[in-house]
Formats: sequence, C-alpha cells, structure tokens
Amino acid sequence: MNKETLRKHLREIPDFPKPGILFYDVTTVFKDVECLQGLIDELYDLYKDKGITKVIGIESRGFILGGALAARLGAGFIMARKPGKLPAEVVQETYAKEYGTDTIQIHKDAITKDDVVLLHDDLLATGGTMAAAYRLVKRFGVENAYVNFVIELTKLNGRKAFEEGVEITTLLPL
Amino acid sequence: MNKETLRKHLREIPDFPKPGILFYDVTTVFKDVECLQGLIDELYDLYKDKGITKVIGIESRGFILGGALAARLGAGFIMARKPGKLPAEVVQETYAKEYGTDTIQIHKDAITKDDVVLLHDDLLATGGTMAAAYRLVKRFGVENAYVNFVIELTKLNGRKAFEEGVEITTLLPL
Repeated sequence: MNKETLRKHLREIPDFPKPGILFYDVTTVFKDVECLQGLIDELYDLYKDKGITKVIGIESRGFILGGALAARLGAGFIMARKPGKLPAEVVQETYAKEYGTDTIQIHKDAITKDDVVLLHDDLLATGGTMAAAYRLVKRFGVENAYVNFVIELTKLNGRKAFEEGVEITTLLPL
Repeated sequence: MNKETLRKHLREIPDFPKPGILFYDVTTVFKDVECLQGLIDELYDLYKDKGITKVIGIESRGFILGGALAARLGAGFIMARKPGKLPAEVVQETYAKEYGTDTIQIHKDAITKDDVVLLHDDLLATGGTMAAAYRLVKRFGVENAYVNFVIELTKLNGRKAFEEGVEITTLLPL
C-alpha cells in the first residue's frame, strides 16, 4: 500500500466530533477498492508469518479490516466492544479518559492462553482503548499479542499508553 | 458453507438484551476460522456475477463480513451508521420501531446512481433498519441493489418490511 495513495484518500474533517478537533475520516479510504484491498494485502504481509490465530477488532471501525484480515490470515475474528453489547459472559478493562473512564469488553470464551493475537483498530490517537484491550488479552495468559492501526497521530504519543516492548505497527504516521 | 456447521456454531442466549428475547450470538461463528472463511466464500459465490461496486455494512456487526466481502468482490466498502457517527455530510432515513423511531445514515458521497450495491447485515429480524438503508440507497437512483443477511428469523416476517421484488438472500433461516 502506497502511503501517498492512502494519505490522498484520507479525508480531513475540521471540528468533528467537537470544535478544535481535526478528524481523519477513513470512510473515503474504505470506499475505494484499491485502497481497501491494498490495506488488507499490506496487513496480511506484515502478519502472515506470526502464526496469528485470533484477530481482535476494536468497536466499531476496527471490525471492517479486522474481519477481512482474520479470514486472510486463517484466524478467527473477535469483537472488542463497549459494555452491554456482548451477550455472553465477558471480561473487561476500565481505563481513564480525558474526563471520566471507559470500559472495553471481550467474551470470556473468545480467546485462550495458546492463541496468538493480533489487535486491530483504524486509528491510534491517545491509545487508551487499545492499551486496555491489550491488557485484557494478556490477562488470558497469551504470550504473543501484536497491535496494529492503519493511522497513527504521532503528536498524541499514543504508544506511551502501552507497556515497554509491545509490537505496534501503523501504516500511516501523521 | 454447510448450514449444519453454521447452526452448530451459532450460540443461543436466552433473555438478551431483555427478558423473553432469545438472542442468536454470531460471535461464536466468527471466532471459528472455518465458519468465517466459509461464510465469505459462500457470499462471494452468491454475488460474484452481479457486478457489485459497493458493499454497505450495517452498524456494527455488518461491518465484519461486509469489509471482507467488499475486498473479495472488488468493491468499495461503505458504513451505514446511527446518527452522530459519520463525520461528513449524510443522507438519512427514519423508520418506526416497536417504541418510537430510529434513523440510519450514510455519507452523501458514499454511492452514486451508477453503483451496483450489496447491503449486508448479520441477522434479519423485523427488517426495519435494513429496509430503511435500502430506501436510502434507492434515493440515489441506484438501479441494482441487493440485500443479504447471514441469519433470518423467519417467524418475524422481516421480508415484509421491503417492497415487492427486492432480492434478499439469507444463509441460515431459523
């Protein structure tokens, strides 16, 4: 996936969801078939030799490439969701946000300690949600877990939300 | 995709999200790689000769197979979302629910009249959301639009929410 092509298809929306925020809109990336296929191909190449058995997509834009990537890698797909959405028994992590806290859940039977896990979301901002999902995965005793985002907002230092040594890839640092 | 295999992996959760509702949980389907790949293969076979140019996934479980299917079919992927989630200019349809109304949106630049559209979601219950998304697509002047669900709860008569002649496929009628 050519970074310039990806950058060109990414749309900037000023003042969304609130004034002063510049929102990077991936809908214009995913609606372009060359971009969509190029992203899945690049992610497949990055992770095809890692022995991934489960891909976890973060609600809800992380489901889009997450499902496609799981199928390509020969792995199962797992949803990480906000409270109240998953119907069976869950495990959860709560994390601090700018104001208050938030919680992310996965099903208790979603993964086992023997899984090799790839966590995926579209965009790394402050990293709070993904770091919580990563801690959740580690609580299962999983040894190998990898983290991927399509876009990284480097100024927000989201990598600092993770412990040392976590393997994080991003395709487009901005 | 063998219907018995699919049925076997689908989990039933009584009294979710409220007492008296039997919820069909697809997370146990998507976490199984043979099921995940089998579903995408079957959907690809169903639609590969239709000339699909855009796949619309309904928020949010419809994103999981929707993204994978778009990439396989050589189509772009579009999100249909609840209000407040899409950052750019939207078009929307409001529809009646059991109590009150609900609204579904897509971006105004998501499709054009020349697109051939496949709308996808995981489960057909009363059909209200999908029928509204279908009407939304038709407002663009799209001639060929198809509708797919993995599971159909036949007792709820969800097909009645659509006008005559809409091509609807479901993989597992229950």
